[in-house]
Amino acid sequence: MRVVPGGIYGHQSPALLTRGHFPHFLESAHGCRIRDVDGNEYIDFMCAYGPMVVGYGNAEVESAAAEQRARCDTGNLPSPVFVELAERFVSLTPGSAWATFGKNGSDVCTWAIAIARKATGRDIVVKVDGAYHGVHDWCNAIRHGFLESDRAAIRSFPWNDLDALSRLFADAPSAIAAVIITPFRHDVFADLEMAAPGFLEGVREITERYGATMIVDDVRAGFRLHIGGSTQLWGVTPDLLAYSKALANGYPLSALVGCERLRQAAGEVFVTGSFFTQSVPLRAALATLDVLEKTDAIARIDRAGRRFTDGLCAQAALANLEVTVSGPPAIPFMTFVGDTKFRMSRAFAGACADHGVFLHPTHNWFVSAAHSDADIDAALAATEPAFHAVAKR
Amino acid sequence: MRVVPGGIYGHQSPALLTRGHFPHFLESAHGCRIRDVDGNEYIDFMCAYGPMVVGYGNAEVESAAAEQRARCDTGNLPSPVFVELAERFVSLTPGSAWATFGKNGSDVCTWAIAIARKATGRDIVVKVDGAYHGVHDWCNAIRHGFLESDRAAIRSFPWNDLDALSRLFADAPSAIAAVIITPFRHDVFADLEMAAPGFLEGVREITERYGATMIVDDVRAGFRLHIGGSTQLWGVTPDLLAYSKALANGYPLSALVGCERLRQAAGEVFVTGSFFTQSVPLRAALATLDVLEKTDAIARIDRAGRRFTDGLCAQAALANLEVTVSGPPAIPFMTFVGDTKFRMSRAFAGACADHGVFLHPTHNWFVSAAHSDADIDAALAATEPAFHAVAKR
Repeated sequence: MRVVPGGIYGHQSPALLTRGHFPHFLESAHGCRIRDVDGNEYIDFMCAYGPMVVGYGNAEVESAAAEQRARCDTGNLPSPVFVELAERFVSLTPGSAWATFGKNGSDVCTWAIAIARKATGRDIVVKVDGAYHGVHDWCNAIRHGFLESDRAAIRSFPWNDLDALSRLFADAPSAIAAVIITPFRHDVFADLEMAAPGFLEGVREITERYGATMIVDDVRAGFRLHIGGSTQLWGVTPDLLAYSKALANGYPLSALVGCERLRQAAGEVFVTGSFFTQSVPLRAALATLDVLEKTDAIARIDRAGRRFTDGLCAQAALANLEVTVSGPPAIPFMTFVGDTKFRMSRAFAGACADHGVFLHPTHNWFVSAAHSDADIDAALAATEPAFHAVAKR
Repeated sequence: MRVVPGGIYGHQSPALLTRGHFPHFLESAHGCRIRDVDGNEYIDFMCAYGPMVVGYGNAEVESAAAEQRARCDTGNLPSPVFVELAERFVSLTPGSAWATFGKNGSDVCTWAIAIARKATGRDIVVKVDGAYHGVHDWCNAIRHGFLESDRAAIRSFPWNDLDALSRLFADAPSAIAAVIITPFRHDVFADLEMAAPGFLEGVREITERYGATMIVDDVRAGFRLHIGGSTQLWGVTPDLLAYSKALANGYPLSALVGCERLRQAAGEVFVTGSFFTQSVPLRAALATLDVLEKTDAIARIDRAGRRFTDGLCAQAALANLEVTVSGPPAIPFMTFVGDTKFRMSRAFAGACADHGVFLHPTHNWFVSAAHSDADIDAALAATEPAFHAVAKR
């Protein structure tokens, strides 16, 4: 608080956790377990808010990263791994022809919009009400320090409401450059919401009909639902696919994967950063993709997530508490019915922390391939008294 | 070119180097020497375009980074190193009270502008004509994919022209939130230009008089001129100081260092990123600052830069070539008089590459603490035939 304005900022802000129950500083992290500076250990269901997908300090990822680091990391030029990872994305991702890399999710979401504007010659970008696509001026929901003009060309519509999207296009049939959308709705302070049958397909159909670009922001969900991009679960192939977080198991990297039609525009929009071609994260991403593919990790994460949420539902019922479990099992969330101010959620998360499980009261959770059945069962042994603590309130 | 639109992008684009003479992919980098994938070795005067300041793979930095990495890197929470580095900045930087961290230079330059707008309640931001402050919409000079409205609140004035700056303020005395400026002018495709006597002091005086924020973008120059911020060389203390590049010797990190008066606004502007509190780069930054301070590195870099540019001037004179050496010795540049299309520069840089020296025809160079007298002399042995090659043309 003395040397950083407001203390720890952004999504890690302790103000969002349960006061008095959560640590503020991390000492170490291995597998799915983290230890705070006071020596308390937690089974972690936040996974660094997504980046950790195959375990903190995963041996295969770290070994590949170390091998690259011994040669070079940030340099005057990329290493061959820059091309290898782009090739890997093109082979993994239906409908894709190229990839580019940045550091933040914000970098590639904004890059995607610029490409769509350049390619279509249109200004308007449509997003879903309340959806988070990073902190840049066009989408930062907290407007302190930003201008109204920064989002003059942004329109929005409610999640799952194809009629509303159709009306936006009908009103401006040749002015909409892109629709940007997440594979499911994962706003903070709300239950997660999956796509209604036909919704993502409808977004694809409408954007195609009007010559607009469909951008999927897979920054949060990527590599936990489908290795070729999360909307492949619904058979939907976007024009541009933005990744970050889990892409390199914690090494800082983002990627934009795109279709052939947008190659020229992508080459014309000028974007760069001092560390965009840094080699170690690119190598770590290749190793992470290897581990995900070789160990059937996405299916294992799904099973671990189901084991966890099934256990939570059973415990809640036994404690006579009505809960809503939402989202895909790999990226689940749980709220208490009627708990509109998240008081029960805060009490539950605080009690979980007291018993050695780190999950969040108001932000979705993440499960990883490092969560074994034994880890899930150990976590459930901690969540059981947490439900009782909530019930007693 | 097949899997990345337009091939290697941004500042690393091979299109900016001399066709047929430069490598495209890096195999390894140690000290001040880099090796391409074909086995050619170069003494490097680009230093990864700035990040490398104490040598590629510096043992002290890598050892500190490895120690932190074995504990944790990207996590749910910061590590104590997050606070230690903020404290270090506050103690190193005159007039500062806090620090925050991001990943790209663009992150912190944009953050600075938002803080200035929030603190002043004003919209307009003034920059110097042609100055580079990153790739975000308000400053990206190549407008493909961006809207005119993105920079509706941006004004600019010529470098070193205090009268022009005064006129901007006189025209809108209570509408200008900030002036953002680099410590010297370092545009590509131009000689570097130092501040005229009184210029930076004048910017400080004018911003203070009108209640505007003075932001110094030290992303490119930081830690090569003065450990407390480059404008300290001129005795000028800005309100906000943006760092990246050399801050962690190649680990991806940026920082914004600010004064007490802007603490509240800084805490209110919402900015975050998946990897903003990643521990290894923060630890690497502390180790880099240690090495810079303990080894008198900034003075050594200045001496190495002088040895190099003095040698170049002497060689040019012997080859009957008129050159202009510009910029501080630590971040020098050289052009040929009358060579407006950079044809001689391209020939010179290409011949240098042929002889094992990597420098750039149209972008400033960087010298590091890993450049020993012997390295400089070895580089000068390569630049001599390069001057002769240019003279022969």
